Amino acid sequence: MIDLSRGHAERLDAADTLAPLRDAFADDDPELIYLDGNSLGRLPQATQERLAEVAADEWGRGLIRSWSHWIDQPARVGDLLGAELLGAESGQVVVSDSTTVNLYKLAVAALDARADRQVIVTDDDNFPTDRYVLEGLAAQRGLVLRMVHADIDQGLSEAALRAAVDADTALVCLSHVAYRSGALLDMAEINDLVHERGALVLWDLCHAVGAVPIELDASGTDLAVGCSYKYLNAGPGAPAFLYVRRAAQATMRQPIWGWFGQRDQFEMGASYDPEPTIARFAAGSPAILGIAAVEEGVRLLAAAGIDRLRAKGAALTSYLIALADAWLPGFTVATPRDPARRGSHVSLHHPEAWQIAQALIDAKVIPDYRTPDRLRLGPAPIYTRFADVWEAMTRLRDIAETKSYDRFPAGRARVT
Amino acid sequence: MIDLSRGHAERLDAADTLAPLRDAFADDDPELIYLDGNSLGRLPQATQERLAEVAADEWGRGLIRSWSHWIDQPARVGDLLGAELLGAESGQVVVSDSTTVNLYKLAVAALDARADRQVIVTDDDNFPTDRYVLEGLAAQRGLVLRMVHADIDQGLSEAALRAAVDADTALVCLSHVAYRSGALLDMAEINDLVHERGALVLWDLCHAVGAVPIELDASGTDLAVGCSYKYLNAGPGAPAFLYVRRAAQATMRQPIWGWFGQRDQFEMGASYDPEPTIARFAAGSPAILGIAAVEEGVRLLAAAGIDRLRAKGAALTSYLIALADAWLPGFTVATPRDPARRGSHVSLHHPEAWQIAQALIDAKVIPDYRTPDRLRLGPAPIYTRFADVWEAMTRLRDIAETKSYDRFPAGRARVT
Repeated sequence: MIDLSRGHAERLDAADTLAPLRDAFADDDPELIYLDGNSLGRLPQATQERLAEVAADEWGRGLIRSWSHWIDQPARVGDLLGAELLGAESGQVVVSDSTTVNLYKLAVAALDARADRQVIVTDDDNFPTDRYVLEGLAAQRGLVLRMVHADIDQGLSEAALRAAVDADTALVCLSHVAYRSGALLDMAEINDLVHERGALVLWDLCHAVGAVPIELDASGTDLAVGCSYKYLNAGPGAPAFLYVRRAAQATMRQPIWGWFGQRDQFEMGASYDPEPTIARFAAGSPAILGIAAVEEGVRLLAAAGIDRLRAKGAALTSYLIALADAWLPGFTVATPRDPARRGSHVSLHHPEAWQIAQALIDAKVIPDYRTPDRLRLGPAPIYTRFADVWEAMTRLRDIAETKSYDRFPAGRARVT
Repeated sequence: MIDLSRGHAERLDAADTLAPLRDAFADDDPELIYLDGNSLGRLPQATQERLAEVAADEWGRGLIRSWSHWIDQPARVGDLLGAELLGAESGQVVVSDSTTVNLYKLAVAALDARADRQVIVTDDDNFPTDRYVLEGLAAQRGLVLRMVHADIDQGLSEAALRAAVDADTALVCLSHVAYRSGALLDMAEINDLVHERGALVLWDLCHAVGAVPIELDASGTDLAVGCSYKYLNAGPGAPAFLYVRRAAQATMRQPIWGWFGQRDQFEMGASYDPEPTIARFAAGSPAILGIAAVEEGVRLLAAAGIDRLRAKGAALTSYLIALADAWLPGFTVATPRDPARRGSHVSLHHPEAWQIAQALIDAKVIPDYRTPDRLRLGPAPIYTRFADVWEAMTRLRDIAETKSYDRFPAGRARVT
């Protein structure tokens, strides 16, 4: 039986080698417990300074001359991200656009590369923008979107996926960590399964990058995209990234033929002649301030080390689940209980989840709500203490026991 | 004959009602003369403060809660931009993505709306990314890209365009102000000409917005895109904007079916059901810091007023051309001489333009170079003095007369 005392949480914090990194983040409200780093990560102090520097020195003083080093940033920061968090050798990752746009670009590239096949496979619990982009492509190209049923608590089963991928499948697009349940898929196994049928895989890493170790090269991944504003702490709407396996780059093409993909870009040649490299998957002008924020975010995670982050994430979520089991009889855990099968967030099921989320915010705990009735709690390992989880769960217990959430109207949610 | 004295320039500055706005921009190098605001505008002081505020207060303190007001920013800042600089009533402009991605989205929407037609028309002097995106779409959809020849000094002639647009034309895509010559097209006349043939028009406003008055609604424009990092001074890679005429919104669809276009977005519904509004032309998560910078930039231009900016832009470029005529016999003016037919930048033709650009930078004047042999000078009216133009042209005259540019290697250029 778990020790339910605050003292136990404090002892876990005292033994946590990542604890000092908490001070790397802006935090001027000691009462507030933030359990939504899986939606929008906290602001690193270094990022605040870097943004001011890029604005004042690079833009304000350097002006157009700064493009001589800005031009390499999407690939340079992509390389850093690839090396530190994605298991990707250099030249395969670029920071660009939004996750949605990157997903579209790479999905089209994959469908063109398997033009003789008619089926796109995803699961019905995949993140909405992924499902919508694929639905759009299926409609535009006259393809079949095969929506595999995934359990909203336990995630997609490999058996269900195996039954759905066939010789007519062009592309399988899945989230490595499910946005609602936190269920984690086995990337290497699924890559093998899909490749056996001759299809390509496109991974959405949004809820995985910075939370779990990822080995894109070693697992044989073809294509991947992800965002930077969750565990990477790069700020609201900061640019996303994309990965294309080196062997596939020269033969694949994305549909948005922009000048940042063009060979000898500033020759401004008459016809599009894309770089034979990862650069061809870029399109328009890169968001320089946003990329600088991605770089700072990745540096911080690199300082922590993904293995330590993963271990602490598993410990924090296990601790949270144990407290939920002990204190919250009205809730059910809507996330795999085996830490090896989940990312770094936990969903709790309760019929009044929306009202409870409002009551928690009122009690200065920031959770997330996800339709239809899930309270999503993401204790980002780089800045969350075990004592934070303990404190949040005691506040949640009080709210649940007193039903004080009843005073909040049954309403609906916002935001990523 | 123009008065060539510095005193004349100083008198023009003394009479300039926009002169005080110069102090709204960061500028800590009084020696430096910046004539490349048409590539990357200067840093407004207010933007520097706003970025720090958004980072510290909205992101750092507000965390995920700030999405309750961030969510409206793309449309809210779009409305401000539309009202102040585009002649667009509210609900027709959204700030999103890059110019390239927006151009792609709207070009596909237009081609789908004219699916029975086979031809896309643009001109061979259009900005590279525009030509490449259209080339890509023509290749992907089996259409004809009809490239009308435009004079690289005088721009596209209406007669040439008229001859190229026929009953099989789906879309005409043009730059309102040509990126190299600065030639300005008559938007209303061209819209009429294209509409007579039943085609749609997509305007690229990158080199026009903030430099010349634009009346999207009154001119009957269907679609437009533009960037924010030139005359709008929103910083490197800041998000672009797009305009879709209200009457066309509900029936047009862009191809990237992202969750930011979805009705009741946070219901995360099973199928894509786009908003019937301008929101359907958005895709992924908006770049919040970048949009804040766009807002600050638009506010400054609004304070100046587009009519005053236009008048000063015409005066500055006319003055620059007069000095070039008087002082630079080896150069030819590669821009329309009638100020009503150009934007706010001037190109000068010289066989050694590349080396001369390097020598100018060495002499602390920042111009731009454009292939094959153009020196591009953009005296952005909001922060450029007549004395800056006088001083830059004297330095250029010295470089030309002494041929001191010979010491720079004949090389090639970079950057937007």
